[in-house]
Amino acid sequence: MSEPPAITRTNPISLLHRIMTMPGYPQASGMRVVDAAPGRVTLAMARRPDLMQFAGHFHGGVITGLADQAAGAAVTTMLPEGRIGVTVEIKVNFLSPADGEEIIARAEAMQSGGTIGVAKIEVITQKKGVERLCAFGIATMRAVDLPAAAPTPSADDTR
Amino acid sequence: MSEPPAITRTNPISLLHRIMTMPGYPQASGMRVVDAAPGRVTLAMARRPDLMQFAGHFHGGVITGLADQAAGAAVTTMLPEGRIGVTVEIKVNFLSPADGEEIIARAEAMQSGGTIGVAKIEVITQKKGVERLCAFGIATMRAVDLPAAAPTPSADDTR
Amino acid sequence: MSEPPAITRTNPISLLHRIMTMPGYPQASGMRVVDAAPGRVTLAMARRPDLMQFAGHFHGGVITGLADQAAGAAVTTMLPEGRIGVTVEIKVNFLSPADGEEIIARAEAMQSGGTIGVAKIEVITQKKGVERLCAFGIATMRAVDLPAAAPTPSADDTR
Amino acid sequence: MSEPPAITRTNPISLLHRIMTMPGYPQASGMRVVDAAPGRVTLAMARRPDLMQFAGHFHGGVITGLADQAAGAAVTTMLPEGRIGVTVEIKVNFLSPADGEEIIARAEAMQSGGTIGVAKIEVITQKKGVERLCAFGIATMRAVDLPAAAPTPSADDTR
Repeated sequence: MSEPPAITRTNPISLLHRIMTMPGYPQASGMRVVDAAPGRVTLAMARRPDLMQFAGHFHGGVITGLADQAAGAAVTTMLPEGRIGVTVEIKVNFLSPADGEEIIARAEAMQSGGTIGVAKIEVITQKKGVERLCAFGIATMRAVDLPAAAPTPSADDTR
Repeated sequence: MSEPPAITRTNPISLLHRIMTMPGYPQASGMRVVDAAPGRVTLAMARRPDLMQFAGHFHGGVITGLADQAAGAAVTTMLPEGRIGVTVEIKVNFLSPADGEEIIARAEAMQSGGTIGVAKIEVITQKKGVERLCAFGIATMRAVDLPAAAPTPSADDTR
Repeated sequence: MSEPPAITRTNPISLLHRIMTMPGYPQASGMRVVDAAPGRVTLAMARRPDLMQFAGHFHGGVITGLADQAAGAAVTTMLPEGRIGVTVEIKVNFLSPADGEEIIARAEAMQSGGTIGVAKIEVITQKKGVERLCAFGIATMRAVDLPAAAPTPSADDTR
Repeated sequence: MSEPPAITRTNPISLLHRIMTMPGYPQASGMRVVDAAPGRVTLAMARRPDLMQFAGHFHGGVITGLADQAAGAAVTTMLPEGRIGVTVEIKVNFLSPADGEEIIARAEAMQSGGTIGVAKIEVITQKKGVERLCAFGIATMRAVDLPAAAPTPSADDTR
């Protein structure tokens, strides 16, 4: 694998903030950036009735969505400017009910550099000040050029 | 594994309809039942700006949520009355951009009967009348008693 | 994704035969090619005491190894000459005891062409003439140039 | 989930040693116990020509087999006496070539107690004294009664 050119890592992090505030699912579901550094990104999401499953816990798809977003961001922070990680596959184990007021996804890149990036993600649920691990997963990302993958959203949404 | 008692399979299917129309993520995200039979459930979801990722395609978490719901439903249709499948883990490969007007998840139970159920799920994106496979996954479910797992949502949401 | 150049698909299949007969785990564990066509490869392996787990069934690692080999081969048959699929990740659900005289892995490429290839694999156990699905999985492959990835085994084994 | 009765954890660890020395794949492939404590098990395996893939690295199935064995052992150490974890599913990402003289799998139980146990596993390759992470995975286990799952191997192998 060829090494990416030396870059300042601030740009991928500003890219992350930009993507998180664009119209779309991350913004609409209330995802927010808690922390971002090269290779590590933490995102959070508050409880809301429209994000729950039948028993009143965060829905598995909602948990996976937060984990996926955090993993993609963690890998992207390791990529050269102008590149972004898109998800090849993700797998998540649900370990305990996500019944807190908030879920927090902490992603850490385990591999990056070439075409493929891999991150592990732990998802915590916070209930009355107590944290508990509620999910754990691994995601595989593919690095793509940003222009090709991200047309301006307005162009895509004029349906 | 002990066999479940003989049952009519209509009840799990009516349970599915009940769950899909309860307040929560499945209803809020616009999931609908296309088809349900013992061991096979098809769900669909229409494109909506608040379900997209940065490039204007269905978000990975949204795709996984639909796949998860369909898989749980497919396994639940094989369980005795009063039992429901909750997700142990799910894994999804994203095969092509989910850029259609709709995504459709077709889940098929591959194992069921005892404590564990497994379903495979293919997710199709439909664009201008053309279907394309955009994701494929496997989910593992655990059968639990319905009363314990599903308090009335109002009881759970009076926070 | 750019399309691979048009090729005859016979070469990747002869590559598969060559790899399966090289010294190493596939040969030592008794894997054999049952069938190979573009995008579809079937491999089999006979029961042997040194491939079993504690209860006398094929070991999970052995089942995964056969599934992995079949998936890599199925993806490789879709690649241009001189390219081979190496495993990025694999996931396998074990659905029933692999207690037959033989296991058979049938892999089918679901995505191929660019850098990433994905295959699904079903593993059958055959016992007294009866086939039963004993495992199901998905593998993600990365296409690499053959010279870089495959030095002659003698060069690698002169330790 | 009901809690398992309080037990001494020494018995599952002696069970682990017993299983690892029974005839079968773990013993035949050279797996050995490096360390075992409640919830954490480390296994290792030395390089051998019959465990390698075409490029002279440990085969993906061999890596997964060691990871699977370690995960099952880590979960089993948390179960009451007479119970053992059997694999429901496993997923492994291959992060760098397993080209060392040895691979070492470190499994840690993340969930245990009831019917389902989950462990994460990191696999290290050791080459000329340098360790490198070469694989990372998650496995889901199901607790079963030992007598039913483990007939004496001789009974099973009299074919």
